[in-house]
Amino acid sequence: MNNKNFYNSLNEIKVSFQGERGAYSEEAAYKFFGNKIKLRPCKELSEVFESVASNESDYGIVPVENSLEGIVNQAYDLLLSSPLKICGEIILRIVHCLIAHPTADINSIKAVYSHPQALAQCKNFLKKLGCKVIPFFDTAGSIKMIKEEKAYDAAAIAGKRAAEIYQMKVLVEGIEDQPNNYTRFFVLSKNDSPPTGDDKTSIVFSVKHVPGALYHALEEFAIRNINLTKIESRPTRIAPWEYNFYLDFEGHISEERCKNAIDGLKRKSIFIKVLGSYPKAKP
Amino acid sequence: MNNKNFYNSLNEIKVSFQGERGAYSEEAAYKFFGNKIKLRPCKELSEVFESVASNESDYGIVPVENSLEGIVNQAYDLLLSSPLKICGEIILRIVHCLIAHPTADINSIKAVYSHPQALAQCKNFLKKLGCKVIPFFDTAGSIKMIKEEKAYDAAAIAGKRAAEIYQMKVLVEGIEDQPNNYTRFFVLSKNDSPPTGDDKTSIVFSVKHVPGALYHALEEFAIRNINLTKIESRPTRIAPWEYNFYLDFEGHISEERCKNAIDGLKRKSIFIKVLGSYPKAKP
Repeated sequence: MNNKNFYNSLNEIKVSFQGERGAYSEEAAYKFFGNKIKLRPCKELSEVFESVASNESDYGIVPVENSLEGIVNQAYDLLLSSPLKICGEIILRIVHCLIAHPTADINSIKAVYSHPQALAQCKNFLKKLGCKVIPFFDTAGSIKMIKEEKAYDAAAIAGKRAAEIYQMKVLVEGIEDQPNNYTRFFVLSKNDSPPTGDDKTSIVFSVKHVPGALYHALEEFAIRNINLTKIESRPTRIAPWEYNFYLDFEGHISEERCKNAIDGLKRKSIFIKVLGSYPKAKP
Repeated sequence: MNNKNFYNSLNEIKVSFQGERGAYSEEAAYKFFGNKIKLRPCKELSEVFESVASNESDYGIVPVENSLEGIVNQAYDLLLSSPLKICGEIILRIVHCLIAHPTADINSIKAVYSHPQALAQCKNFLKKLGCKVIPFFDTAGSIKMIKEEKAYDAAAIAGKRAAEIYQMKVLVEGIEDQPNNYTRFFVLSKNDSPPTGDDKTSIVFSVKHVPGALYHALEEFAIRNINLTKIESRPTRIAPWEYNFYLDFEGHISEERCKNAIDGLKRKSIFIKVLGSYPKAKP
């Protein structure tokens, strides 16, 4: 039974995400859970974490990384202090659309609104279009804004779903410069995810600032032939130029070799936290 | 002879930076070179690189990392493909100021403009102030904008220097939430920097996606007792979820042990590029 079938067999579940209705996170939620979910849009990423921690939602969806831009800093920083577990992973192909009022024509567009990252990812298209480019807080929110403000000579960039939800028109689909544009999301809950045989584990740790410290930490994975899929450093925010390392590796924390690697790492690190084990995203 | 004295002894040198006059990068340029420089503000970060490569400027200043927010993704991505060398490092304490028209009073402020990162770093202050918060392209640019637009009931957030340059008034100085707010800049030129005995080297490399690959790469530094000061991963942008690693370590590329470490790493990596050796920033 895949994710969708499993979650569809449950009673209606509540899923929080950040952004306006129609955001890419909403698309990710449907991809993972199927469509029998109750969505709870949150203004801030921190609210997604809080709503799950306080049982207002069963799950939270947070974007953690884009294949072109890199990690979502704030999501990583929030994972550090949150009591929640990563219980799932979603990979979504990002297809940006130029969206405007149903009556609009591409030649009448004078300004394009969207999140700065989306604007940057459609740079070539926007250059050719040659109109004013204006940053906005988020993608789907920019569609909502041009609708509510009755900005008939403006367009905005977001996913197709945003056009459907706000009953606006897709003028051009797939306007991103690079096709290998994917966003990776984590599914957060209060509970661990059981092993499936094809899992990943995410941890965060820090080591003393001495030569070889990171090398000796990684040894615990290398000697057990555990494949690292990602390593990321983030400022601790406590002291400048000191870092926490976020590590993703193949395997579930309940597996013997993974457990032993974590035990070994504990002896070599100042601090370590297991963020969760979860089934690998299906492409 | 320190940096400033050395550069002051040269004929007037041309220095490019990204942003409007009064940007933090401009402050960094003066800190490093002293005040006998000719500044060349660039609209885009890529123009800073281009202006040095084409000899329009002698040096370029680029922000690479903030102690709270992490790296400047675009700067790292541009370093990868640029022929320029990192020849210097600057660390600047970031002091955000609330700036408005000379006639303005803090009680009359209805909206605050700035770069989203500066707004985020002054969240607590802005919450207490309780007015509309509007993202803008850059910090100093937001000061220039409220001046030119004659927005008498608006303020903007930038460094003190921006207030001086645009003849605006600092309403409140030091409004950032966290005091350990520093930005690290690289100085770029066409030439290598000679060893000083207290240097750092920056490189970028990639390894095969097999278990232990990064561990074996770091071995070259650990066995030579070379201290790593930073490791950062960035998407290759060629294939999703594949990464280049950016590494900073103590020592100059002309030192025997550093040369040997690089030679060792060459045998273990798919790709490697030395970005430059440079004197460590003085705090």
